[in-house]
Amino acid sequence: MKPVNIGILGLGTVGSGAVGVLRKNAAEISRRLGRDVNVFIVSTRDAEKARAVCDTHTLVTNDPFSVVKHPEVDIVVELFGGTEIARELVLEAINNGKHIVTANKKLLAEYGNEIFSLAEQKNVMVQFEAAVAGGIPIIKALREGLTANNIKSIAGIINGTSNFILTEMREKGSAFADVLKQAQELGYAEADPTFDIEGHDAGHKITIMSALAFGTPVNFKACYLEGISKLDSRDIKYAEELGYRVKLLGITRKTDKGIELRVHPTLIPECRLLANVNGVMNAVRVDADMVGETLYYGAGAGALPTASAVVADIVDISRLITADTGNRVPHLAFQPSQVKAQNMLSMDEITSSYYLRVQAKDEPGVLGQIANLLAEENVSIEALIQKGVIKQTIAEIVILTHSTVEKNIKKAIAAIECLDCVYEPVVMIRMESLHASNG
Amino acid sequence: MKPVNIGILGLGTVGSGAVGVLRKNAAEISRRLGRDVNVFIVSTRDAEKARAVCDTHTLVTNDPFSVVKHPEVDIVVELFGGTEIARELVLEAINNGKHIVTANKKLLAEYGNEIFSLAEQKNVMVQFEAAVAGGIPIIKALREGLTANNIKSIAGIINGTSNFILTEMREKGSAFADVLKQAQELGYAEADPTFDIEGHDAGHKITIMSALAFGTPVNFKACYLEGISKLDSRDIKYAEELGYRVKLLGITRKTDKGIELRVHPTLIPECRLLANVNGVMNAVRVDADMVGETLYYGAGAGALPTASAVVADIVDISRLITADTGNRVPHLAFQPSQVKAQNMLSMDEITSSYYLRVQAKDEPGVLGQIANLLAEENVSIEALIQKGVIKQTIAEIVILTHSTVEKNIKKAIAAIECLDCVYEPVVMIRMESLHASNG
Repeated sequence: MKPVNIGILGLGTVGSGAVGVLRKNAAEISRRLGRDVNVFIVSTRDAEKARAVCDTHTLVTNDPFSVVKHPEVDIVVELFGGTEIARELVLEAINNGKHIVTANKKLLAEYGNEIFSLAEQKNVMVQFEAAVAGGIPIIKALREGLTANNIKSIAGIINGTSNFILTEMREKGSAFADVLKQAQELGYAEADPTFDIEGHDAGHKITIMSALAFGTPVNFKACYLEGISKLDSRDIKYAEELGYRVKLLGITRKTDKGIELRVHPTLIPECRLLANVNGVMNAVRVDADMVGETLYYGAGAGALPTASAVVADIVDISRLITADTGNRVPHLAFQPSQVKAQNMLSMDEITSSYYLRVQAKDEPGVLGQIANLLAEENVSIEALIQKGVIKQTIAEIVILTHSTVEKNIKKAIAAIECLDCVYEPVVMIRMESLHASNG
Repeated sequence: MKPVNIGILGLGTVGSGAVGVLRKNAAEISRRLGRDVNVFIVSTRDAEKARAVCDTHTLVTNDPFSVVKHPEVDIVVELFGGTEIARELVLEAINNGKHIVTANKKLLAEYGNEIFSLAEQKNVMVQFEAAVAGGIPIIKALREGLTANNIKSIAGIINGTSNFILTEMREKGSAFADVLKQAQELGYAEADPTFDIEGHDAGHKITIMSALAFGTPVNFKACYLEGISKLDSRDIKYAEELGYRVKLLGITRKTDKGIELRVHPTLIPECRLLANVNGVMNAVRVDADMVGETLYYGAGAGALPTASAVVADIVDISRLITADTGNRVPHLAFQPSQVKAQNMLSMDEITSSYYLRVQAKDEPGVLGQIANLLAEENVSIEALIQKGVIKQTIAEIVILTHSTVEKNIKKAIAAIECLDCVYEPVVMIRMESLHASNG
């Protein structure tokens, strides 16, 4: 069979990685695919780098738009990044009948519906394994491996930078700011780390997985984002003393009332596998009605792991390029006619259990007052522990609640903060038991 | 699109589970697939059960051979079990142009080459996600998700019964025989547990994964099998004191000299995710050159998890039934012309590190003699610990070695057992560090 021709937009870390993987493992890939993958053309502003990275026969251009319309190109690999020009390039490529491979989670979380809709009109495939959790084949698992299931929830450690910082904070008891600085020195965090540490990146990824799981359009605007920059290492320590680890989780869950979609720091029991995913590694846990709990672990970023996913998508498209277009795996896992918006729950409507830390005057009756205010909002207490006295007369009280609606806990917190004996805002961190649910 | 018609051979636990999944999640499956999956006919000796399990329109027969030749059947789902009649049925179904879904690991590990070869002649697909690790989509990950990689090794907890027994032995310090009895009462172990506890089942699974990883024919005969029935809970306790857990692993690894393929109890560092996979759960760790370490976790057995995999295969085939036959994912991951036998290493040739336990006279000079005998075979010692005195004059010595060729450790053990001061055969358990290797 004749080689499949790819055009790569952008030769940054992942782009160079993809070319490197295709060159280094060319023989192994062809042994599997039955045809060669040919890097026909790349667009980059750095022609010198391109010549160093690519085979001599690869064309190099500084005009990405010449790639998306080149008649010899079968598959356009978008590693351009950003959303403005990337969106234009992808739409034009699709209009020209090119199949797309992209690692651009932001593009898909924000413009995925438009892109998939055009792709369906034009009968081309858009593959995006590398957009979520790097080299872990989680998109394939959700779209194909778990087709027999009603998926109930997904919870994932899907931002390596944040997980590295949380791991260091726990292991060394360091403050957030110190670990962030170290992560920046190690190259695990960007100079402007907002995108990673404030949950945007994880939000894009859980938004994409939520759509695949529940057959809805992508809806990044509905995703609640709360990062790790305000976490106090004291809470990580207290959590650990109580048998929990704090992780930045992306969570999506189908409930009778609608879909939860959220990113925030979360206490999880230390015996769960997710609690033991450390450093920059990623893991995604899926709870589904037939198979129960499955978990997928691996490197969520990095040139080669991401390139591994990009190349897997290239191979998939190369196999299906000749197939019946009506019988392909749908972009969002469900047939386009079956993708339907569902009610997205606001944070007030979600259900969770909670870790609270209250600083209050160390005097009789305080615990009772706090417990009463929780009871008034129907929040029942699993544990209430006085963690010791700070300064002379201030005690720290840690409370673990049973499951409740978030609106109630917020009301209770507001009431607690009004008590004369309470200093400082109450610290609230959500908890997930990650029990496998039944049927 | 018209429904795809399936014929199911055998209505035992998994067969009933598959029918149940297809009925319960019919809407969700059709929303994804874009057509219905119709259980057209089932073969079973228990017609009454069939009528209770199946839709009224499903045909029921006691003659499985009538299913494999029925002109209306598109896909034959072999859940008959065993290898004799199952092999005949599958070959006849293929000869009749039927696609196959099977959960039968023994059949594929022993007769896979014959079956795949006939399937390629007849242009039909044979899918077997359920044959390895139940509901975990590990076959899909190996055949499709990791196509960009040279796979270096696989290590898996792939027998739930054994993992349940080892978990209980560790947590309660119980003896193997007691836990086995308990597992039998709970339904986690068969009346005749040989197949599970002596490593046969894990051997079938790692044999299949080895072929997929390295592009070789399936070769169950080359698989070394050592079960858990001779494990002493003392060794599990000592391992734990040293920071290790004992797991029954299926291991396959590509080396410069050939392929390792083996099942045996293994010490692994307690910080590894695999070490924390407990009870009947399964997990498979893959080390590959581009993506690094990935891990796949979930239920490895049970009616519904296995049915989840069976139905995913049915959906996959339904999608590809109209596709270009020359462009499908190959059965053994590599194009048939590229599947090549490679040198399979004997156990004498494999490389591992080792846990040894020696019972010896508690007197000066014993440790030195043992250390000398190891040194003579070029085995270097990582740790040598006297674990306390049994009876009056007998000490237990635990040794952890560095990596060495198994032939050497066996020679050293034989020499140690010849020492006058040594009682009882030396206990030897292999160790795996499960470090992610580089590039």
